Amino acid sequence: MKRTLGTCYYPEHWPEDQWGEDARRMVEAGLTWVRIGEFAWSRLEPVRGAYDFAWLDRAIAVLGGAGLRVVLGTPTATPPRWMLDRHPDMLALDEQGRARKFGSRRHYCFSHEGYRAECALIVEQLAERYGKNPHVAAWQTDNEYGCHDTALSYSDAARIGFQVWLRDRFSGDIAALNTAWGNVFWSMEYDDFAQIDLPNLTVTEANPAHCLAFRRYTSDAVVSFNRLQVDILRAHTDRPLTHNYMGRITDFDHFAVGDDLDIASWDSYPLGFLEDRVGADAARQRIYAQTGDPDFQAFHHDLYRAVGRGRWWVMEQQPGPVNWAPYNPEPLPGMVRLWTWEAFAHGAEAVCYFRWRQAPMAQEQLHAGMLRPDSKDAPAIIEAREVARELADAGDVAPAQAPVGLIFDYDADAAWQVQPHGATLSYFGLVFEQYRALRSLGLSVDILPPTVRDFTGYAVVLAPGMMHMPQDLKNALAQSEAHVVLGPRSGARDAHMNIPLPLPPDYPDLDVTVARIESLRPDMPRDLADGGRIINYREIIEGTADVVLRCAKGSAIAMHAGTGTYVAAWLDLEGWQNILRPLIQNAGIETIDLPDGVRIRDTGAERFWFNFTQEPHQIGAHHLAPISVLRQPR
Amino acid sequence: MKRTLGTCYYPEHWPEDQWGEDARRMVEAGLTWVRIGEFAWSRLEPVRGAYDFAWLDRAIAVLGGAGLRVVLGTPTATPPRWMLDRHPDMLALDEQGRARKFGSRRHYCFSHEGYRAECALIVEQLAERYGKNPHVAAWQTDNEYGCHDTALSYSDAARIGFQVWLRDRFSGDIAALNTAWGNVFWSMEYDDFAQIDLPNLTVTEANPAHCLAFRRYTSDAVVSFNRLQVDILRAHTDRPLTHNYMGRITDFDHFAVGDDLDIASWDSYPLGFLEDRVGADAARQRIYAQTGDPDFQAFHHDLYRAVGRGRWWVMEQQPGPVNWAPYNPEPLPGMVRLWTWEAFAHGAEAVCYFRWRQAPMAQEQLHAGMLRPDSKDAPAIIEAREVARELADAGDVAPAQAPVGLIFDYDADAAWQVQPHGATLSYFGLVFEQYRALRSLGLSVDILPPTVRDFTGYAVVLAPGMMHMPQDLKNALAQSEAHVVLGPRSGARDAHMNIPLPLPPDYPDLDVTVARIESLRPDMPRDLADGGRIINYREIIEGTADVVLRCAKGSAIAMHAGTGTYVAAWLDLEGWQNILRPLIQNAGIETIDLPDGVRIRDTGAERFWFNFTQEPHQIGAHHLAPISVLRQPR
Amino acid sequence: MKRTLGTCYYPEHWPEDQWGEDARRMVEAGLTWVRIGEFAWSRLEPVRGAYDFAWLDRAIAVLGGAGLRVVLGTPTATPPRWMLDRHPDMLALDEQGRARKFGSRRHYCFSHEGYRAECALIVEQLAERYGKNPHVAAWQTDNEYGCHDTALSYSDAARIGFQVWLRDRFSGDIAALNTAWGNVFWSMEYDDFAQIDLPNLTVTEANPAHCLAFRRYTSDAVVSFNRLQVDILRAHTDRPLTHNYMGRITDFDHFAVGDDLDIASWDSYPLGFLEDRVGADAARQRIYAQTGDPDFQAFHHDLYRAVGRGRWWVMEQQPGPVNWAPYNPEPLPGMVRLWTWEAFAHGAEAVCYFRWRQAPMAQEQLHAGMLRPDSKDAPAIIEAREVARELADAGDVAPAQAPVGLIFDYDADAAWQVQPHGATLSYFGLVFEQYRALRSLGLSVDILPPTVRDFTGYAVVLAPGMMHMPQDLKNALAQSEAHVVLGPRSGARDAHMNIPLPLPPDYPDLDVTVARIESLRPDMPRDLADGGRIINYREIIEGTADVVLRCAKGSAIAMHAGTGTYVAAWLDLEGWQNILRPLIQNAGIETIDLPDGVRIRDTGAERFWFNFTQEPHQIGAHHLAPISVLRQPR
Repeated sequence: MKRTLGTCYYPEHWPEDQWGEDARRMVEAGLTWVRIGEFAWSRLEPVRGAYDFAWLDRAIAVLGGAGLRVVLGTPTATPPRWMLDRHPDMLALDEQGRARKFGSRRHYCFSHEGYRAECALIVEQLAERYGKNPHVAAWQTDNEYGCHDTALSYSDAARIGFQVWLRDRFSGDIAALNTAWGNVFWSMEYDDFAQIDLPNLTVTEANPAHCLAFRRYTSDAVVSFNRLQVDILRAHTDRPLTHNYMGRITDFDHFAVGDDLDIASWDSYPLGFLEDRVGADAARQRIYAQTGDPDFQAFHHDLYRAVGRGRWWVMEQQPGPVNWAPYNPEPLPGMVRLWTWEAFAHGAEAVCYFRWRQAPMAQEQLHAGMLRPDSKDAPAIIEAREVARELADAGDVAPAQAPVGLIFDYDADAAWQVQPHGATLSYFGLVFEQYRALRSLGLSVDILPPTVRDFTGYAVVLAPGMMHMPQDLKNALAQSEAHVVLGPRSGARDAHMNIPLPLPPDYPDLDVTVARIESLRPDMPRDLADGGRIINYREIIEGTADVVLRCAKGSAIAMHAGTGTYVAAWLDLEGWQNILRPLIQNAGIETIDLPDGVRIRDTGAERFWFNFTQEPHQIGAHHLAPISVLRQPR
Repeated sequence: MKRTLGTCYYPEHWPEDQWGEDARRMVEAGLTWVRIGEFAWSRLEPVRGAYDFAWLDRAIAVLGGAGLRVVLGTPTATPPRWMLDRHPDMLALDEQGRARKFGSRRHYCFSHEGYRAECALIVEQLAERYGKNPHVAAWQTDNEYGCHDTALSYSDAARIGFQVWLRDRFSGDIAALNTAWGNVFWSMEYDDFAQIDLPNLTVTEANPAHCLAFRRYTSDAVVSFNRLQVDILRAHTDRPLTHNYMGRITDFDHFAVGDDLDIASWDSYPLGFLEDRVGADAARQRIYAQTGDPDFQAFHHDLYRAVGRGRWWVMEQQPGPVNWAPYNPEPLPGMVRLWTWEAFAHGAEAVCYFRWRQAPMAQEQLHAGMLRPDSKDAPAIIEAREVARELADAGDVAPAQAPVGLIFDYDADAAWQVQPHGATLSYFGLVFEQYRALRSLGLSVDILPPTVRDFTGYAVVLAPGMMHMPQDLKNALAQSEAHVVLGPRSGARDAHMNIPLPLPPDYPDLDVTVARIESLRPDMPRDLADGGRIINYREIIEGTADVVLRCAKGSAIAMHAGTGTYVAAWLDLEGWQNILRPLIQNAGIETIDLPDGVRIRDTGAERFWFNFTQEPHQIGAHHLAPISVLRQPR
Repeated sequence: MKRTLGTCYYPEHWPEDQWGEDARRMVEAGLTWVRIGEFAWSRLEPVRGAYDFAWLDRAIAVLGGAGLRVVLGTPTATPPRWMLDRHPDMLALDEQGRARKFGSRRHYCFSHEGYRAECALIVEQLAERYGKNPHVAAWQTDNEYGCHDTALSYSDAARIGFQVWLRDRFSGDIAALNTAWGNVFWSMEYDDFAQIDLPNLTVTEANPAHCLAFRRYTSDAVVSFNRLQVDILRAHTDRPLTHNYMGRITDFDHFAVGDDLDIASWDSYPLGFLEDRVGADAARQRIYAQTGDPDFQAFHHDLYRAVGRGRWWVMEQQPGPVNWAPYNPEPLPGMVRLWTWEAFAHGAEAVCYFRWRQAPMAQEQLHAGMLRPDSKDAPAIIEAREVARELADAGDVAPAQAPVGLIFDYDADAAWQVQPHGATLSYFGLVFEQYRALRSLGLSVDILPPTVRDFTGYAVVLAPGMMHMPQDLKNALAQSEAHVVLGPRSGARDAHMNIPLPLPPDYPDLDVTVARIESLRPDMPRDLADGGRIINYREIIEGTADVVLRCAKGSAIAMHAGTGTYVAAWLDLEGWQNILRPLIQNAGIETIDLPDGVRIRDTGAERFWFNFTQEPHQIGAHHLAPISVLRQPR
């Protein structure tokens, strides 16, 4: 499959006589894809039941006629104002119990049955009309599920949905729920599922079992909301279906949503993310303020390759400053090209720039486009043209399994959010920092869903912080040929968020027991014996396995037996490198110590080098210019 | 007109047999004015419709009989408790949707028609009774509109008022509103004005056009609330009318309110403001903790001179520690005198100290007065007496036009609040920092309303950050003899908060175009080529005008043609000085580089030097003692 | 009375066949006490009115049969879910007006009459059944009144209760209330008690008199809630009654609650408190992160000795990491023993560890126990066994009056909260820092309730920050033989929160007047003339008394006459030492300058030395090992 480029376009925002010229310039710039329609509900159905598809017919004809392939979005992220008159209670409620009002987007509760039915109607109309349209080459459901903290809702619809879900899960046996959740603890026992409220606004923290169940319910609600649209679309089209996930949104299981789709895609805003959600400290934010964090996009690329079971896109690529972060600087020259190539290096089939022309109105006026508001070239289109020229002789997408697998489990992320134990702790952060360490050793990484049981081909598999590890996963890992690295907190909870007996990790043939734990203030890291430090969190472990890492004061930090290693702490980068480097080398994999900001990614055919820094780097025989991409055959 | 002193007094707080002695001591201290009545509604109308003016008659007689001139306040900032029984929905709602309850003051929504009618009744009573009273020499409407964040209200009354206002503005054409606001953007289109809610509690940010319209509506609501009282008062009195604005409240257009009044006045609390709203960094807050920021009061003095079209007062002058800032230190000895003279230097007709005697009860117990609670002299009365003695031979108010005009536009402030683009950006901050730079060059400044079109007499006019610049303003500036300094962000939006075409600034005979913008982290300033730095925000500009300032890396930061200069960035103090100093000198105006904390102000007759620092300064032939005022004939 | 140990146990959390073994191991570890029942309401009354005491009968029989003495808790901190169906309005409302929902604990409003009646029923049942049970040796009412900010409620029940309370206090005379509160200030006068709302959500701060009255009402509501249970229990049992107060909860008067009980007890979590509520700066938090603040527990020990009129326990002692602080590190080895001995040194009769076995479920999974979840020994039981062995020959509780008394007044704490004047000011903080200074001088301290009038035996009595000092207290102090240290802010308000005349402190035979006050930024401390600094707050004082402390610039900071000394500032540790050391020595009391982290406590029979640091210390002839307790006969 060819590597391709695209953009996001809103014909409804522009005079119809501009569409043709826009399409021509898209093709001229080397774009293949144009995504449209996902916010246009008020133009598609201006009055309830009175559809207006004529303009969209013409827009698709103009775009398709110019040679572009259309990705058509369902408009369910932006219900029109009349929808609220029909369904006043469709709004989500925030954790404080306040209705989240009309006036922007995503103003709906995933649990609201009435709204779901409305979505089914509009999707049915679109699918019928465009399912076999020759220009419509792919479909996108909704837009950025969970963005703006919209997955979790504390509405009546969510409460009732949650009760039904629980009744189903516990087969109507409220005593079973009370036992599973340990509700005897503070006399929190229920007599009936109808008594169970949502776990917000409690006097002190709610039962973590209660909270985790609500997060699982929420995830299932998103999955079923998406599936409703998928089922309708499938009945009318054989084109691939995708959804554009937003970076570092973990409030629902992307793997589960992805299982119903053909292609995963995500929206990559490196500079906005650095300011807003990477979690880097101020010094690091300053260094990478105009390039983005060198591992954050890569992590998501690898994640969505897994979510898409190999097929994935960047549906929205930052083209210049965004409008929504605390500070919104310009990318350095060359970064739009670098980000694009980075996505291809990680296996993307397509990279689409958001958006074609900067909007002069409404919420995203200060979000750059490929064109300025006056239709002149913005820097992004110039770099996109350069990539398009390079792609002409760059070869196809070249899949290859990485030597290292890293399990990412949305359920574990939820469990950590429910019970972090320390103010600086998050599952995403832990996994991401291990990922960074792997990448700093020159490795390509496959992110794996928690449901994988076949680890063939991986020399090393890591499952840090996976709070609940089903027994069959433990068995599959132990029986695989991979060297397995667990901990901290792996297997620390049973399926209902209770501490299991025997105590964790309870991993086959690895005699290690977590006797107790502690979380650490940021100003009290603890030195490891041979370089690096423990930060954030540590466990005190016991057992007969070999100690392979100690803290400076002598106690065991990692233990090893057979193919299993348990790491009983959150380490800093040097610490992770020190435990992982020899382990990976022993597994027969070469490592390369890379400077911060320099990264390697291998495909089946190529090795890519990326330099995110403003300085040149010499690594062995390779000279990397500042802000550069180096592509070699492999 | 003589420069005069006064105080704020609450006869209703004290035993009647104390009034005479208080009045005698006021006169003895050299005071001319006494403001009374503005919080006394519960005593003026203890039961709805049953008025009690006898005590006020006697108070005015005692005070006036002692030789004082009374400023009588309408009591509408403090509706009595019975008002809520009549109008339970009169309370404003905060942005979170919570009613702002009775129990302090300003507990009303400007949009509430029922409350407005009640205000009209009490003002009518007061105006009838005292409009021609010989001792009542001026009137104050309400008290500190907007203080405690009370301008913006999210009540039903405000929502309905907003809908009516919009319907009127768009002549009932909802499609016109949808177009003007770009509501197609996220399917935010309305079918009817009655669907338009207030822009709070939306899922993500509301449409900036929606937000700005609501702020404009709010401003108009304040203006009309005030006008209602003005119209009643005018029918009964020919005494001047004023309102006492609060420092750095920008939620409504003070110029528009001021247009209905005769004198502007404001409440100056230099130490409270430094802690609470100047926006200085911690180091600067520490330096000026006991003197106040050396430019903040001056800025407001110049602002309210403009609001009052030349006639203005300090209605409340801080006399000692206040009670409401995070920290409330004492002013240094001499500061009360310095602040008073500074007001006169900027053209004040009167300075009134708040308050006469420190209250032993209720919310402001820890707010100093001219007297202690035990009626002994507090430091303020001693310094006031000194000023009174100095005034005896100090000459009259001596108006003079300044060489430099600086436009301040409340609507631009609203636009920046709606769409700051960076966490550290505010219009007030930008204008204030330019003002500081001008003052650091020894200049006196006139602040100008955005409605001015005649710039005769100004050598230089600045209009930084004025988001919407009407074409006739641009023309008037370009055709004036003044050198005009625009930017950043001047003319960046059309009247409805959209990016205009051609792109800004679109200023006559100045070929400069803002191609794009970026906001900057506080830790990533950028050096200018010749000293000073870019902070907070910058624009990338194009055009054929002459580049007069560059950043160290070479790109244009300011461009000039004819009499116009556009500055494409927010600069630090040194940066502003470096661009403004030669420009002002070229306009034929002398500059003097002043140390931080030393300031000059010229009137028609005098030059004043103020030293806010605890060190002496020698500037040319002038020796400035620590914390001092130097007054010279000019 | 012997010094004894105990633990907190939840038979309802564990299989019944485990109870016997647990009891055996408790006895084996040297424990005397086992507290049970306080969260078990849903098991005692699973359906309204259908009680199930059989399991509790058996649990008490098993525990008592093993030789343990049972403390039985009333379960009113955890009303079952069915209670909400009966009393939907029983929930407290938070300051934002949001109902605090079911799903954790303490979900009730102290003012709700319906809930009080339900509590009376369950307490009556328990008292009848177990009042004379030979194994039930003590009773605990409810659990941690006020924890999780649950004392103050803004519910309708609280509003109505407050109105009734005010009507009673002011004998139905609303004019008297208006006068006492100074409601004329902003026309806040009421016509009827039914108009008085709770002082939350006002536009700006509510009247401090209003706020303080509401806090007093709240305190009285807690006292009467507790008294309801006490009265029922007294009718059925002669065993001692206690309540387990939580550290640094000051929202009600613990002395007043304690007056109805026989023994005070409190819950001591040194590491959690250090993170969460000591108020130490980051550097200090880091130093003591694994030991707790060296004075915080001691302060509470002395406080609850006063609350219990000599009889007090630690009902819950931290045994390892807790789950609820921002960071939750492990105590250093030896700290559980040290904390236990420290409690005994301050006169505790018993120290009970919370909890016996770490819970694998619900909210406190990550709260350590004496046993791990798998029932193996956790570190705490090992250190508890060591203490038990030491206790065998350690002698009995040996009461002794301390040479120094320090008044702690919950009402003053409320007054400071209502009107702090500076962001860093709190009454608790002021008293605690004076306490720390006294302890750093090697002194043992008695904390005294504000109601004490007989100061016989005290060489020195301190009453810092006591906002309202009744005249008979001033007289009693002045007539005592103690040297009395007042200030800052002592006597600064009358009984209704007004500034009194004459101005404070108005203390017999001490001619000192607080002329004015100021609060200070943290970055602007002021040097004292002879070492130490003024921080946070200072007063300007006048009078003829002798100046005994000056600031470096010369103004008086402390004045002295006869036996009275007034300190007009908040000082740092060195400052307090410098004023207190000579004063105490002059009173004939020996002082020892102790390093930070080393403390002395004398009982009637022993002198204890505690070293909270990880370094050894030599003090005179005494060698203190790191983290150690040294016990000597006295």
